[in-house]
Amino acid sequence: MDSRGVLLIISGPSGSGKGTVAEILTREDDYFLSVSATTRAPRDYEIPGEHYYFMTKEEFLSKVRDGEFLEWAEFCGNCYGTPKKEIMERLDKGQNIILEIEVQGALQVKNEYPEAVLVFMIPPSAQELKKRLAGRGTETEEVILERLERALIELDVANMYDYLVINHVSDQTAEDLKGIVMAEKQKVSRNKEIIQEFKGEVF
Amino acid sequence: MDSRGVLLIISGPSGSGKGTVAEILTREDDYFLSVSATTRAPRDYEIPGEHYYFMTKEEFLSKVRDGEFLEWAEFCGNCYGTPKKEIMERLDKGQNIILEIEVQGALQVKNEYPEAVLVFMIPPSAQELKKRLAGRGTETEEVILERLERALIELDVANMYDYLVINHVSDQTAEDLKGIVMAEKQKVSRNKEIIQEFKGEVF
Repeated sequence: MDSRGVLLIISGPSGSGKGTVAEILTREDDYFLSVSATTRAPRDYEIPGEHYYFMTKEEFLSKVRDGEFLEWAEFCGNCYGTPKKEIMERLDKGQNIILEIEVQGALQVKNEYPEAVLVFMIPPSAQELKKRLAGRGTETEEVILERLERALIELDVANMYDYLVINHVSDQTAEDLKGIVMAEKQKVSRNKEIIQEFKGEVF
Repeated sequence: MDSRGVLLIISGPSGSGKGTVAEILTREDDYFLSVSATTRAPRDYEIPGEHYYFMTKEEFLSKVRDGEFLEWAEFCGNCYGTPKKEIMERLDKGQNIILEIEVQGALQVKNEYPEAVLVFMIPPSAQELKKRLAGRGTETEEVILERLERALIELDVANMYDYLVINHVSDQTAEDLKGIVMAEKQKVSRNKEIIQEFKGEVF
């Protein structure tokens, strides 16, 4: 079976619970969460290199020029990017990488690295999504509506994803994702060398 | 998640152990082995409707004309075919169907029913394959060589399959196949309706 790791991209509307599922996966020895680079200021509780790689806009743009990001984007004046080198090294070592990013970034990565596996995560129902968003109790109705509208756009892009996962219970969803990674490793497209070697050994 | 069953096609060289793995899968409530139709005479131990549907060449060809087979082929003057109706009914009911057929038939089915999942099974090594073939002790060297040559041709076609499964231990391989079926059911291509419904419910 293919010994390279799988680059697992998880997207989904805010409130889909993808962060919790990603965190459960990282408890496994062979799953790692990718750390993004950003130009925004660190928050009090954020640890550099763990939550983000913090850098100036100049540093960031120089990395963009040098092709050091798998994808990058600007939000509200700040830049966010996914560093390529560390991810590729880990994949080569057989480690699976989880990328929790939004849909545009996900499609950029798929374009750059077609072996990436795109999973779109939704809560059990739209009602449940609304409940989860409201349940945080920290957002205004306007913010909730804006997120729902964003969710609609993301659901359109979800049609270009590989898998749709319905997140009923986080632990079970994490198991589903592990199953998807196992299946992906057995794809013929990842194992053509094995077929070739096997043929060579028959006679 | 998509409620339809998965049509799982297992191919692989003689000696790959696919029959044993298929048999293990059928112990699950939702896995059924497809019964082929054939024009050859039943052997002593064969039960009609369990091992094969036995029929005359006239009956068989009339079914071919009526499009009742997902695939069919002639070997050594006998016809073999995979009846479509029963398979489609079971898939609609959410049952998974296992088809253990050779590569030409598998590609015919994939052409007719693109949702079919094609799994190519090989033993851990070519050496192991030779051992398994010889191990039966019932075949002449000529027959073994012929099978190995056939295996080489099949391995070329395997490049067009969806999954490559290496059969180390039958029970584990059956688990791998169940994992592949679970992952397949979560493919976006099978769940576009769910995305559509979810969108409709958001507002």
